[in-house]
Amino acid sequence: MPKISDARKAERREQILAGAARCFAEHGYEGATVAKLEREIGLSRGAIFNYFASKEDLFLELAARDTKRVSEVFLDRGLEGVLHEILEFDPSWLSVYLELVRRARTDPAFRTRLESRETEFVLANRARVEEAQRAGEIRDDLDPKSLGIFVNLVLHGLMVQRATGEDPPPVGLVLGLLEDAIGGARRRTPSRTPA
Amino acid sequence: MPKISDARKAERREQILAGAARCFAEHGYEGATVAKLEREIGLSRGAIFNYFASKEDLFLELAARDTKRVSEVFLDRGLEGVLHEILEFDPSWLSVYLELVRRARTDPAFRTRLESRETEFVLANRARVEEAQRAGEIRDDLDPKSLGIFVNLVLHGLMVQRATGEDPPPVGLVLGLLEDAIGGARRRTPSRTPA
Repeated sequence: MPKISDARKAERREQILAGAARCFAEHGYEGATVAKLEREIGLSRGAIFNYFASKEDLFLELAARDTKRVSEVFLDRGLEGVLHEILEFDPSWLSVYLELVRRARTDPAFRTRLESRETEFVLANRARVEEAQRAGEIRDDLDPKSLGIFVNLVLHGLMVQRATGEDPPPVGLVLGLLEDAIGGARRRTPSRTPA
Repeated sequence: MPKISDARKAERREQILAGAARCFAEHGYEGATVAKLEREIGLSRGAIFNYFASKEDLFLELAARDTKRVSEVFLDRGLEGVLHEILEFDPSWLSVYLELVRRARTDPAFRTRLESRETEFVLANRARVEEAQRAGEIRDDLDPKSLGIFVNLVLHGLMVQRATGEDPPPVGLVLGLLEDAIGGARRRTPSRTPA
Protein backbone atom coordinates (compact mmCIF):
# COMPACT_ATOMS: atom_id res chain seq x y z
CA MET A 1 0.00 0.00 0.00
CA PRO A 2 1.49 3.38 -0.97
CA LYS A 3 2.36 5.73 1.86
CA ILE A 4 0.05 8.73 2.17
CA SER A 5 1.82 12.07 2.30
CA ASP A 6 1.30 14.44 5.24
CA ALA A 7 -0.50 16.89 3.00
CA ARG A 8 -2.87 14.17 1.84
CA LYS A 9 -3.42 13.11 5.45
CA ALA A 10 -4.29 16.66 6.50
CA GLU A 11 -6.65 16.96 3.56
CA ARG A 12 -8.38 13.71 4.45
CA ARG A 13 -8.72 14.82 8.04
CA GLU A 14 -10.53 17.94 6.87
CA GLN A 15 -12.75 15.89 4.59
CA ILE A 16 -13.73 13.69 7.52
CA LEU A 17 -14.46 16.64 9.82
CA ALA A 18 -16.50 18.49 7.20
CA GLY A 19 -18.58 15.39 6.45
CA ALA A 20 -19.07 14.63 10.15
CA ALA A 21 -20.24 18.22 10.77
CA ARG A 22 -22.82 17.90 7.98
CA CYS A 23 -23.94 14.52 9.24
CA PHE A 24 -24.33 15.66 12.89
CA ALA A 25 -26.18 18.79 11.78
CA GLU A 26 -28.58 16.83 9.58
CA HIS A 27 -29.30 13.83 11.81
CA GLY A 28 -28.31 15.00 15.29
CA TYR A 29 -25.49 13.43 17.28
CA GLU A 30 -27.40 10.27 18.23
CA GLY A 31 -28.94 10.04 14.78
CA ALA A 32 -25.53 10.16 13.06
CA THR A 33 -24.92 6.42 12.84
CA VAL A 34 -21.61 5.05 11.59
CA ALA A 35 -23.33 4.07 8.33
CA LYS A 36 -24.56 7.64 7.86
CA LEU A 37 -21.14 9.06 8.71
CA GLU A 38 -19.57 6.78 6.08
CA ARG A 39 -22.07 7.92 3.47
CA GLU A 40 -21.72 11.63 4.23
CA ILE A 41 -17.92 11.56 4.51
CA GLY A 42 -17.43 9.21 1.56
CA LEU A 43 -14.96 6.95 3.38
CA SER A 44 -15.24 3.58 5.13
CA ARG A 45 -15.48 3.35 8.92
CA GLY A 46 -11.97 1.88 8.92
CA ALA A 47 -10.57 4.98 7.22
CA ILE A 48 -12.59 7.38 9.40
CA PHE A 49 -11.66 5.80 12.72
CA ASN A 50 -8.05 5.63 11.61
CA TYR A 51 -8.07 9.43 11.93
CA PHE A 52 -10.44 9.84 14.88
CA ALA A 53 -10.79 7.24 17.61
CA SER A 54 -14.56 7.65 17.98
CA LYS A 55 -17.66 9.63 17.09
CA GLU A 56 -17.09 11.54 20.32
CA ASP A 57 -13.62 12.55 19.13
CA LEU A 58 -15.11 13.88 15.91
CA PHE A 59 -17.57 16.03 17.82
CA LEU A 60 -14.93 17.25 20.30
CA GLU A 61 -12.60 18.33 17.50
CA LEU A 62 -15.43 20.24 15.79
CA ALA A 63 -16.43 21.83 19.11
CA ALA A 64 -12.82 22.81 19.83
CA ARG A 65 -12.64 24.57 16.46
CA ASP A 66 -15.82 26.51 17.19
CA THR A 67 -14.48 27.55 20.58
CA LYS A 68 -11.20 28.66 19.04
CA ARG A 69 -12.93 30.66 16.32
CA VAL A 70 -15.38 32.38 18.67
CA SER A 71 -12.54 33.22 21.06
CA GLU A 72 -10.51 34.73 18.22
CA VAL A 73 -13.49 36.78 17.13
CA PHE A 74 -13.94 38.01 20.71
CA LEU A 75 -10.29 39.04 21.02
CA ASP A 76 -10.41 40.70 17.62
CA ARG A 77 -13.87 42.25 17.38
CA GLY A 78 -15.29 42.08 20.89
CA LEU A 79 -18.81 41.13 21.91
CA GLU A 80 -20.40 42.59 18.82
CA GLY A 81 -18.31 40.26 16.67
CA VAL A 82 -19.28 37.28 18.81
CA LEU A 83 -22.99 38.08 18.53
CA HIS A 84 -22.72 38.24 14.73
CA GLU A 85 -20.71 35.01 14.74
CA ILE A 86 -23.35 33.12 16.72
CA LEU A 87 -26.11 34.40 14.45
CA GLU A 88 -24.17 33.03 11.50
CA PHE A 89 -23.92 29.50 12.89
CA ASP A 90 -26.06 26.87 11.20
CA PRO A 91 -29.06 26.33 13.53
CA SER A 92 -28.90 22.57 12.84
CA TRP A 93 -25.35 22.48 14.10
CA LEU A 94 -26.22 24.51 17.20
CA SER A 95 -28.90 21.98 18.11
CA VAL A 96 -26.22 19.27 18.21
CA TYR A 97 -24.70 21.14 21.16
CA LEU A 98 -28.06 21.30 22.91
CA GLU A 99 -28.63 17.61 22.28
CA LEU A 100 -25.35 16.87 24.09
CA VAL A 101 -26.15 18.95 27.17
CA ARG A 102 -27.67 15.89 28.88
CA ARG A 103 -24.53 13.91 28.17
CA ALA A 104 -22.30 16.70 29.52
CA ARG A 105 -24.25 16.43 32.76
CA THR A 106 -24.43 12.65 33.06
CA ASP A 107 -21.10 11.53 31.58
CA PRO A 108 -18.21 13.03 33.61
CA ALA A 109 -15.52 11.78 31.20
CA PHE A 110 -17.22 13.54 28.28
CA ARG A 111 -17.65 16.68 30.35
CA THR A 112 -13.97 16.71 31.32
CA ARG A 113 -12.88 16.32 27.72
CA LEU A 114 -15.24 19.07 26.59
CA GLU A 115 -14.06 21.50 29.27
CA SER A 116 -10.36 20.74 28.87
CA ARG A 117 -10.53 21.99 25.30
CA GLU A 118 -11.92 25.32 26.47
CA THR A 119 -9.48 26.20 29.25
CA GLU A 120 -6.91 28.10 27.20
CA PHE A 121 -9.60 30.22 25.57
CA VAL A 122 -11.35 30.96 28.84
CA LEU A 123 -8.03 32.30 30.15
CA ALA A 124 -7.33 34.39 27.04
CA ASN A 125 -10.85 35.84 27.09
CA ARG A 126 -10.60 36.66 30.78
CA ALA A 127 -7.31 38.50 30.23
CA ARG A 128 -9.05 40.54 27.53
CA VAL A 129 -11.88 41.39 29.93
CA GLU A 130 -9.38 42.57 32.56
CA GLU A 131 -7.74 44.77 29.94
CA ALA A 132 -11.12 46.28 29.05
CA GLN A 133 -11.76 46.93 32.73
CA ARG A 134 -8.43 48.73 33.12
CA ALA A 135 -9.27 50.79 30.03
CA GLY A 136 -12.63 51.74 31.58
CA GLU A 137 -14.55 50.13 28.72
CA ILE A 138 -16.49 47.88 31.06
CA ARG A 139 -17.45 48.04 34.73
CA ASP A 140 -14.80 47.01 37.23
CA ASP A 141 -16.94 46.53 40.33
CA LEU A 142 -17.56 42.91 39.31
CA ASP A 143 -14.78 40.43 38.55
CA PRO A 144 -14.20 39.12 35.01
CA LYS A 145 -15.60 35.72 35.98
CA SER A 146 -18.92 37.22 37.11
CA LEU A 147 -19.20 39.33 33.97
CA GLY A 148 -18.36 36.23 31.92
CA ILE A 149 -21.16 34.24 33.60
CA PHE A 150 -23.71 36.85 32.57
CA VAL A 151 -22.44 37.29 29.02
CA ASN A 152 -22.41 33.51 28.59
CA LEU A 153 -26.04 33.29 29.69
CA VAL A 154 -26.95 35.70 26.90
CA LEU A 155 -24.80 33.85 24.35
CA HIS A 156 -26.25 30.47 25.30
CA GLY A 157 -29.73 31.95 25.16
CA LEU A 158 -28.93 33.13 21.65
CA MET A 159 -27.83 29.59 20.75
CA VAL A 160 -31.15 28.17 21.96
CA GLN A 161 -33.08 30.86 20.13
CA ARG A 162 -31.19 30.19 16.88
CA ALA A 163 -31.38 26.41 17.24
CA THR A 164 -35.16 26.69 17.69
CA GLY A 165 -35.25 28.41 14.30
CA GLU A 166 -36.69 31.69 15.56
CA ASP A 167 -36.00 34.94 13.73
CA PRO A 168 -32.74 36.36 15.03
CA PRO A 169 -33.05 39.38 17.33
CA PRO A 170 -31.37 42.58 16.11
CA VAL A 171 -27.69 42.48 17.10
CA GLY A 172 -27.89 46.17 18.07
CA LEU A 173 -30.67 45.48 20.59
CA VAL A 174 -28.83 42.63 22.32
CA LEU A 175 -25.51 44.47 22.23
CA GLY A 176 -27.03 47.69 23.59
CA LEU A 177 -28.67 45.94 26.53
CA LEU A 178 -25.55 43.89 27.23
CA GLU A 179 -23.46 47.06 27.24
CA ASP A 180 -25.92 48.73 29.60
CA ALA A 181 -25.41 45.77 31.95
CA ILE A 182 -21.64 45.45 31.77
CA GLY A 183 -20.50 48.76 30.29
CA GLY A 184 -18.15 51.24 31.95
CA ALA A 185 -18.74 54.90 32.79
CA ARG A 186 -20.64 55.50 29.52
CA ARG A 187 -24.23 54.58 30.37
CA ARG A 188 -27.36 53.62 28.49
CA THR A 189 -28.12 53.59 24.82
CA PRO A 190 -28.39 57.07 23.27
CA SER A 191 -32.19 56.88 22.91
CA ARG A 192 -32.43 57.37 26.67
CA THR A 193 -30.27 60.48 26.85
CA PRO A 194 -32.50 63.56 27.06
CA ALA A 195 -32.05 65.80 24.01
CA MET B 1 -66.84 -2.36 33.40
CA PRO B 2 -67.59 0.09 36.21
CA LYS B 3 -67.70 3.75 35.29
CA ILE B 4 -64.74 5.75 36.56
CA SER B 5 -65.70 8.86 38.50
CA ASP B 6 -64.47 12.29 37.41
CA ALA B 7 -62.32 12.54 40.53
CA ARG B 8 -60.72 9.19 39.74
CA LYS B 9 -60.15 10.31 36.14
CA ALA B 10 -58.43 13.52 37.26
CA GLU B 11 -56.29 11.53 39.66
CA ARG B 12 -55.25 9.09 36.98
CA ARG B 13 -54.42 11.95 34.64
CA GLU B 14 -52.06 13.35 37.26
CA GLN B 15 -50.54 9.92 37.81
CA ILE B 16 -49.84 9.66 34.08
CA LEU B 17 -48.32 13.14 33.83
CA ALA B 18 -46.11 12.66 36.89
CA GLY B 19 -44.82 9.32 35.58
CA ALA B 20 -44.25 10.71 32.10
CA ALA B 21 -42.28 13.66 33.55
CA ARG B 22 -40.03 11.26 35.48
CA CYS B 23 -39.59 9.05 32.43
CA PHE B 24 -38.71 11.96 30.09
CA ALA B 25 -36.30 13.38 32.66
CA GLU B 26 -34.54 10.06 33.17
CA HIS B 27 -34.35 8.79 29.59
CA GLY B 28 -34.81 11.91 27.48
CA TYR B 29 -37.75 12.41 25.13
CA GLU B 30 -36.52 10.05 22.44
CA GLY B 31 -35.31 7.55 25.03
CA ALA B 32 -38.72 7.43 26.73
CA THR B 33 -40.16 4.47 24.82
CA VAL B 34 -43.76 3.42 25.29
CA ALA B 35 -42.55 0.39 27.28
CA LYS B 36 -40.59 2.67 29.63
CA LEU B 37 -43.56 5.03 29.97
CA GLU B 38 -45.78 2.06 30.91
CA ARG B 39 -43.28 0.94 33.56
CA GLU B 40 -42.75 4.38 35.07
CA ILE B 41 -46.45 5.32 35.04
CA GLY B 42 -47.65 1.89 36.15
CA LEU B 43 -50.41 1.69 33.54
CA SER B 44 -50.76 -0.06 30.19
CA ARG B 45 -50.28 1.87 26.95
CA GLY B 46 -54.02 1.48 26.34
CA ALA B 47 -54.83 3.27 29.58
CA ILE B 48 -52.18 5.97 29.03
CA PHE B 49 -53.20 6.81 25.48
CA ASN B 50 -56.83 6.85 26.53
CA TYR B 51 -55.97 10.03 28.45
CA PHE B 52 -53.36 11.52 26.10
CA ALA B 53 -53.38 10.92 22.35
CA SER B 54 -49.61 10.63 22.02
CA LYS B 55 -46.22 11.03 23.68
CA GLU B 56 -46.14 14.50 22.14
CA ASP B 57 -49.37 15.37 23.94
CA LEU B 58 -47.86 14.27 27.22
CA PHE B 59 -44.86 16.53 26.71
CA LEU B 60 -46.97 19.47 25.56
CA GLU B 61 -49.22 19.25 28.62
CA LEU B 62 -46.17 19.18 30.92
CA ALA B 63 -44.62 22.11 29.04
CA ALA B 64 -47.87 24.09 29.24
CA ARG B 65 -47.91 23.61 33.02
CA ASP B 66 -44.32 24.86 33.31
CA THR B 67 -45.17 27.91 31.22
CA LYS B 68 -48.23 28.62 33.33
CA ARG B 69 -46.29 28.28 36.58
CA VAL B 70 -43.38 30.45 35.46
CA SER B 71 -45.79 33.09 34.18
CA GLU B 72 -47.65 33.11 37.51
CA VAL B 73 -44.37 33.47 39.37
CA PHE B 74 -43.42 36.39 37.12
CA LEU B 75 -46.72 38.17 37.70
CA ASP B 76 -46.49 37.52 41.42
CA ARG B 77 -42.80 37.86 42.28
CA GLY B 78 -41.20 39.42 39.20
CA LEU B 79 -37.92 38.49 37.57
CA GLU B 80 -36.25 37.53 40.83
CA GLY B 81 -38.94 34.91 41.41
CA VAL B 82 -38.52 33.56 37.89
CA LEU B 83 -34.75 33.24 38.31
CA HIS B 84 -35.24 31.25 41.52
CA GLU B 85 -37.90 29.14 39.83
CA ILE B 86 -35.60 28.19 36.93
CA LEU B 87 -32.78 27.32 39.34
CA GLU B 88 -35.17 24.97 41.12
CA PHE B 89 -36.10 23.01 37.98
CA ASP B 90 -34.71 19.51 37.74
CA PRO B 91 -31.74 19.74 35.31
CA SER B 92 -32.76 16.40 33.73
CA TRP B 93 -36.15 17.82 32.89
CA LEU B 94 -34.64 21.01 31.46
CA SER B 95 -32.52 18.95 29.09
CA VAL B 96 -35.71 17.43 27.65
CA TYR B 97 -36.57 20.92 26.39
CA LEU B 98 -33.14 21.31 24.83
CA GLU B 99 -33.44 17.90 23.20
CA LEU B 100 -36.67 19.05 21.53
CA VAL B 101 -35.22 22.28 20.14
CA ARG B 102 -34.29 20.49 16.90
CA ARG B 103 -37.84 19.22 16.56
CA ALA B 104 -39.30 22.68 17.20
CA ARG B 105 -37.24 23.90 14.26
CA THR B 106 -37.87 21.04 11.84
CA ASP B 107 -41.47 20.03 12.66
CA PRO B 108 -43.79 23.00 12.04
CA ALA B 109 -46.85 21.21 13.49
CA PHE B 110 -45.02 20.58 16.75
CA ARG B 111 -43.79 24.15 16.83
CA THR B 112 -47.28 25.54 16.31
CA ARG B 113 -48.68 23.40 19.11
CA LEU B 114 -45.85 24.45 21.42
CA GLU B 115 -46.31 28.14 20.69
CA SER B 116 -50.10 28.12 20.84
CA ARG B 117 -49.89 27.03 24.47
CA GLU B 118 -47.75 30.04 25.31
CA THR B 119 -49.75 32.84 23.72
CA GLU B 120 -51.98 33.75 26.66
CA PHE B 121 -49.00 33.90 29.02
CA VAL B 122 -46.92 35.98 26.63
CA LEU B 123 -49.77 38.50 26.55
CA ALA B 124 -50.21 38.55 30.35
CA ASN B 125 -46.46 38.96 30.88
CA ARG B 126 -46.27 41.75 28.35
CA ALA B 127 -49.10 43.63 30.07
CA ARG B 128 -47.16 43.34 33.34
CA VAL B 129 -44.06 44.76 31.63
CA GLU B 130 -46.04 47.73 30.33
CA GLU B 131 -47.35 48.35 33.83
CA ALA B 132 -43.77 48.29 35.20
CA GLN B 133 -42.77 50.78 32.50
CA ARG B 134 -45.59 53.14 33.46
CA ALA B 135 -44.53 52.82 37.10
CA GLY B 136 -40.93 53.73 36.12
CA GLU B 137 -39.63 50.39 37.43
CA ILE B 138 -38.06 49.52 34.09
CA ARG B 139 -36.84 51.54 31.14
CA ASP B 140 -39.45 52.71 28.67
CA ASP B 141 -37.26 53.65 25.70
CA LEU B 142 -37.54 50.06 24.44
CA ASP B 143 -40.85 48.29 23.83
CA PRO B 144 -41.95 45.35 26.02
CA LYS B 145 -41.26 42.91 23.19
CA SER B 146 -37.61 44.02 22.89
CA LEU B 147 -37.10 43.85 26.63
CA GLY B 148 -38.72 40.40 26.60
CA ILE B 149 -36.33 39.17 23.90
CA PHE B 150 -33.34 40.09 26.04
CA VAL B 151 -34.73 38.70 29.29
CA ASN B 152 -35.61 35.46 27.50
CA LEU B 153 -32.04 35.12 26.21
CA VAL B 154 -30.81 35.26 29.81
CA LEU B 155 -33.49 32.80 31.00
CA HIS B 156 -32.76 30.35 28.20
CA GLY B 157 -29.04 30.68 28.91
CA LEU B 158 -29.82 29.79 32.51
CA MET B 159 -31.72 26.71 31.32
CA VAL B 160 -28.70 25.55 29.30
CA GLN B 161 -26.38 26.22 32.20
CA ARG B 162 -28.58 24.26 34.61
CA ALA B 163 -29.20 21.41 32.16
CA THR B 164 -25.42 21.07 31.69
CA GLY B 165 -25.20 20.49 35.44
CA GLU B 166 -22.99 23.48 36.18
CA ASP B 167 -23.08 25.17 39.58
CA PRO B 168 -25.87 27.75 39.53
CA PRO B 169 -24.75 31.38 39.33
CA PRO B 170 -25.78 33.59 42.28
CA VAL B 171 -29.31 34.88 41.64
CA GLY B 172 -28.24 38.32 42.94
CA LEU B 173 -25.52 38.59 40.29
CA VAL B 174 -27.81 37.72 37.38
CA LEU B 175 -30.65 39.85 38.72
CA GLY B 176 -28.37 42.84 39.35
CA LEU B 177 -26.95 42.77 35.82
CA LEU B 178 -30.40 42.22 34.30
CA GLU B 179 -31.73 45.19 36.25
CA ASP B 180 -28.81 47.32 35.08
CA ALA B 181 -29.79 46.42 31.53
CA ILE B 182 -33.54 46.90 31.75
CA GLY B 183 -34.00 48.93 34.94
CA GLY B 184 -35.63 52.34 35.16
CA ALA B 185 -34.18 55.56 36.59
CA ARG B 186 -32.48 53.72 39.45
CA ARG B 187 -29.14 52.70 38.02
CA ARG B 188 -26.41 50.19 38.81
CA THR B 189 -25.95 47.88 41.74
CA PRO B 190 -25.04 49.61 45.03
CA SER B 191 -21.42 48.41 44.92
CA ARG B 192 -20.82 50.96 42.22
CA THR B 193 -22.18 53.94 44.10
CA PRO B 194 -19.28 55.89 45.63
CA ALA B 195 -19.41 55.83 49.44
